[in-house]
Amino acid sequence: MKTNDDTLSIFALGGINEIGKNMYAVQYSNDIIIIDCGGKFPDESLLGIDLIIPDITYLEENKDKIRALIVTHGHEDHIGGIPYFLRKLNVPIYATRFTLGLIELKLEEHRLIRDTKLVQIDSDSILELGDIKVSFFRTSHSIPDCLGIVFHTPEGNVVHTGDFKFDLTPVNKQYSDIHKMAEIGRQGVLVLLSESTNAERTGLTPTERIVGDHMEEAFMKAQGKVIISTFASNVNRVQQVVDAALKTNRKLALLGRSMVNVVSVAIERGYLKVPDGMMVEAREIGKMDPERVAILCTGSQGEPLAALARLASANYRDAAILPGDTVILAASPIPGNERGVSHIIDNLFQLGAKVIYGSGSTTGMHVSGHGYQEDLKLMLTLMKPTYFIPIHGEFRMLHHHRLLAESVGVEKGNTFIIKNGDVIDIENSLARQTRKIPSGDTYVDGMGIGDVRDIVLRDRKQLSEDGMLVIVITINKMDRKMVSEPDTISRGFVYARDSDDLLKEVNRLVKKSINDLQEANVHQWNAMKQNIKKSVGQYLYKQTKRKPMILPVIIEI
Amino acid sequence: MKTNDDTLSIFALGGINEIGKNMYAVQYSNDIIIIDCGGKFPDESLLGIDLIIPDITYLEENKDKIRALIVTHGHEDHIGGIPYFLRKLNVPIYATRFTLGLIELKLEEHRLIRDTKLVQIDSDSILELGDIKVSFFRTSHSIPDCLGIVFHTPEGNVVHTGDFKFDLTPVNKQYSDIHKMAEIGRQGVLVLLSESTNAERTGLTPTERIVGDHMEEAFMKAQGKVIISTFASNVNRVQQVVDAALKTNRKLALLGRSMVNVVSVAIERGYLKVPDGMMVEAREIGKMDPERVAILCTGSQGEPLAALARLASANYRDAAILPGDTVILAASPIPGNERGVSHIIDNLFQLGAKVIYGSGSTTGMHVSGHGYQEDLKLMLTLMKPTYFIPIHGEFRMLHHHRLLAESVGVEKGNTFIIKNGDVIDIENSLARQTRKIPSGDTYVDGMGIGDVRDIVLRDRKQLSEDGMLVIVITINKMDRKMVSEPDTISRGFVYARDSDDLLKEVNRLVKKSINDLQEANVHQWNAMKQNIKKSVGQYLYKQTKRKPMILPVIIEI
Repeated sequence: MKTNDDTLSIFALGGINEIGKNMYAVQYSNDIIIIDCGGKFPDESLLGIDLIIPDITYLEENKDKIRALIVTHGHEDHIGGIPYFLRKLNVPIYATRFTLGLIELKLEEHRLIRDTKLVQIDSDSILELGDIKVSFFRTSHSIPDCLGIVFHTPEGNVVHTGDFKFDLTPVNKQYSDIHKMAEIGRQGVLVLLSESTNAERTGLTPTERIVGDHMEEAFMKAQGKVIISTFASNVNRVQQVVDAALKTNRKLALLGRSMVNVVSVAIERGYLKVPDGMMVEAREIGKMDPERVAILCTGSQGEPLAALARLASANYRDAAILPGDTVILAASPIPGNERGVSHIIDNLFQLGAKVIYGSGSTTGMHVSGHGYQEDLKLMLTLMKPTYFIPIHGEFRMLHHHRLLAESVGVEKGNTFIIKNGDVIDIENSLARQTRKIPSGDTYVDGMGIGDVRDIVLRDRKQLSEDGMLVIVITINKMDRKMVSEPDTISRGFVYARDSDDLLKEVNRLVKKSINDLQEANVHQWNAMKQNIKKSVGQYLYKQTKRKPMILPVIIEI
Repeated sequence: MKTNDDTLSIFALGGINEIGKNMYAVQYSNDIIIIDCGGKFPDESLLGIDLIIPDITYLEENKDKIRALIVTHGHEDHIGGIPYFLRKLNVPIYATRFTLGLIELKLEEHRLIRDTKLVQIDSDSILELGDIKVSFFRTSHSIPDCLGIVFHTPEGNVVHTGDFKFDLTPVNKQYSDIHKMAEIGRQGVLVLLSESTNAERTGLTPTERIVGDHMEEAFMKAQGKVIISTFASNVNRVQQVVDAALKTNRKLALLGRSMVNVVSVAIERGYLKVPDGMMVEAREIGKMDPERVAILCTGSQGEPLAALARLASANYRDAAILPGDTVILAASPIPGNERGVSHIIDNLFQLGAKVIYGSGSTTGMHVSGHGYQEDLKLMLTLMKPTYFIPIHGEFRMLHHHRLLAESVGVEKGNTFIIKNGDVIDIENSLARQTRKIPSGDTYVDGMGIGDVRDIVLRDRKQLSEDGMLVIVITINKMDRKMVSEPDTISRGFVYARDSDDLLKEVNRLVKKSINDLQEANVHQWNAMKQNIKKSVGQYLYKQTKRKPMILPVIIEI
């Protein structure tokens, strides 16, 4: 760190120019506080990768300065990286009661719970972490117990909103702390970091309550079973499903591991109210009158192994979709998941179900948890920051969020659109963006964290498109003659039975490549391998327009 | 064919339960007429596959009966399979002037044009194909020169709508033949096959003209260059871009091979009117006043190598996006393409462009070419068929189309929701669905048609996720001892430098596997290979949670 001791620095290690792996940090002097530690799901180009987490090189290099990881809420893009983070850095985690419940589930699975310090906070907590005082305010979002954070530093106050919308009639009555936000703004905000997910959408986000109204209506009309798929962590929506089931005299079964786990946490910790005797085990469903059953299940994003997909392909031991059942998809597909979701909807119709699907504005079965433009403008208006850093979004969202900030009075030039790794340094109330720290995607593949890099992915891509061909050549050490015919093995390239002639010609070319070189008195293995790759590669491309990976193996005996 | 000679049969070889590879057929006695021969683009699960075309086994087996391939219009999902079809079956192709232009482009590329009989028809043509008389009617769609088809058979009339909407104010004044459709309906329609793409959407499709209005407005407001990306084949939209450019005194450049090709066909054949001197070459763009230039380009679906993606990544020799330029995405992303399109929009914003994007109903820059529910009901009302077969759509669309048919009077039970390969046989005005013929996906990969099958794809999938490990073992024929250390090559599995210890242990396990078997007096290669696969596989999974393909190669010398 080539800055003065009394510099305030703010940076993101994830969450900028992407949706996912949120991780931000505020540093003052020798104190670093981390905000969130999220994961991101890979797109189909990242073959075989399970999860992407932030590169934390900078934090590892400055581990003595880290005072805390504060988690704003319990969504995967804010907590998914925690188990991997903890393996490198043992930092105390501060979060609300519900958020901690979800983190604990994760740490138990990874067997990390024993060695981690977890500190429960709420919106009234005040922390002294090194030279930084931290206070909080409550926000509304699609999961309970969300926090915005205020960092009181000698240089000025920094506010991080977490994820939020302004829902003035929250189902769980966890009202946004609007008065507190106004007071924070009145006291002065030097820097605001605010989430940008819906900065492209005009208007104000609808309240979650409208989902309850539509849910109740659908339950009233339904003839057979009612099956609802939604995010397990959207406890308010789950509560509205419970309420609709109660009103229409249906018992409730849960399908899918994360639904069972998260609902248990929510009930245990008092975030979800379910009357005694209302829950039934999945295996009871088949024995009950369909009109007395509702099922809450995972898989609203089309995940092929989740409960909804298995129900749709009639592949669930405990429950079957029957003609006349009503299936409600109470979620919007995240970009990239549309095809999978459509496929499930088709299968449900084929089973004879009535399916309620489509955008939330059509069905009323889904509303976003992220504030639209008017929500974002309200936050900016309450906080009236000197400097503004739009976070949590792809570039176009950050761009629109900047325009919103300017429209409510943030001075032109005082908004910083950063990248992951860019550092905003503030000294004497003057903010500058000058430095960069290491940042990027760290891939989790199976047990490995960061051991799969671009070269491995490049190989996987080539293998995935055209397969491969291993050619084993045995050469006698003495006379440098081939001992036997080359041995050729192909996988993922051509259907073996169709390719006798092709592989015969490959063998001929391999022998020719080696003989040609030997006649020219070249005996280096590498030259032989290159020569084989070239002549076989050209031949196969000409014949098939494919470029399998060609792997010559020379055995000298 | 186990039916009487005077049976009318109708079937689909593609287009049902999918969007793409449309191919339908009407057979009466010994005459088969094929309708369309489309391709479908593979999703990401079909690793390395370039295109999917229908399985035409049945047609090959009955090639003497095939009288014609009639093509309703020139979209890829209706003509994309033609070159591959022609390599197996040399059938005369009937299509309108513009459709033939697009087919000819394709056949020239595949060097098939010389040997193919192409017959130009229009909506007034009447064909006698064996015992079937064929007439046509004009429809509106997002490409010029579209046809609906009437098959006059002794058993009754069969109508195939092609793709359509009712645009009462078509840009090119190619009005739908509503009076003719009414007359066809009055004469009696035994079976209607009607497209179902938008059967889920309520209302009537908007007219293409609204795009022209919005286009003109955007051109008026634009400061720098205007770049419009849309489908090249949407000639009416291209015409409206030409008109807007003309009104605002801009020259027009074309970027992207298919844009150049299709626009040339459209101009040549009189479907697009461009004033002399209005077109400029791409290489002129840089020298011109940005306010005097408009660019029409390919790539509206986010295709990574198309013109728009290359412009967005500042990677196009002839043209650069400058701050203040306006980019219009005049197309909706097809499901599955959202991420690619978003990525391009982000890049455009980063270059400082003003980007007009989002759903057509928001921007007014795109309308669908496929009829919504009211369009579909109007077609059903005009045709008032006895039997109805919804085609061209995924299952949920066919399902909704059936409900629409029933709502306008088609008798319950008279709608057949078929699958590709299902045959509807009609004798004495009675329709039954009893038989199946072969059908399915044929994969095109490079030069190969159908040579990549599930086993090859399965291998590609495994290779793509966890890579592979080739283990070469050399064994002496005489003493059955290993001649040297096993030779191990991995690709796409782990980063080589990180994995020394891992591969050492693999070597140890390989030697142990072989020794164990030999001590038990087992010398079969297959047993050895299985043993190695098992022990190495288990070890690697335990260490890495990955399952690379393990390929033991035993060389006996």
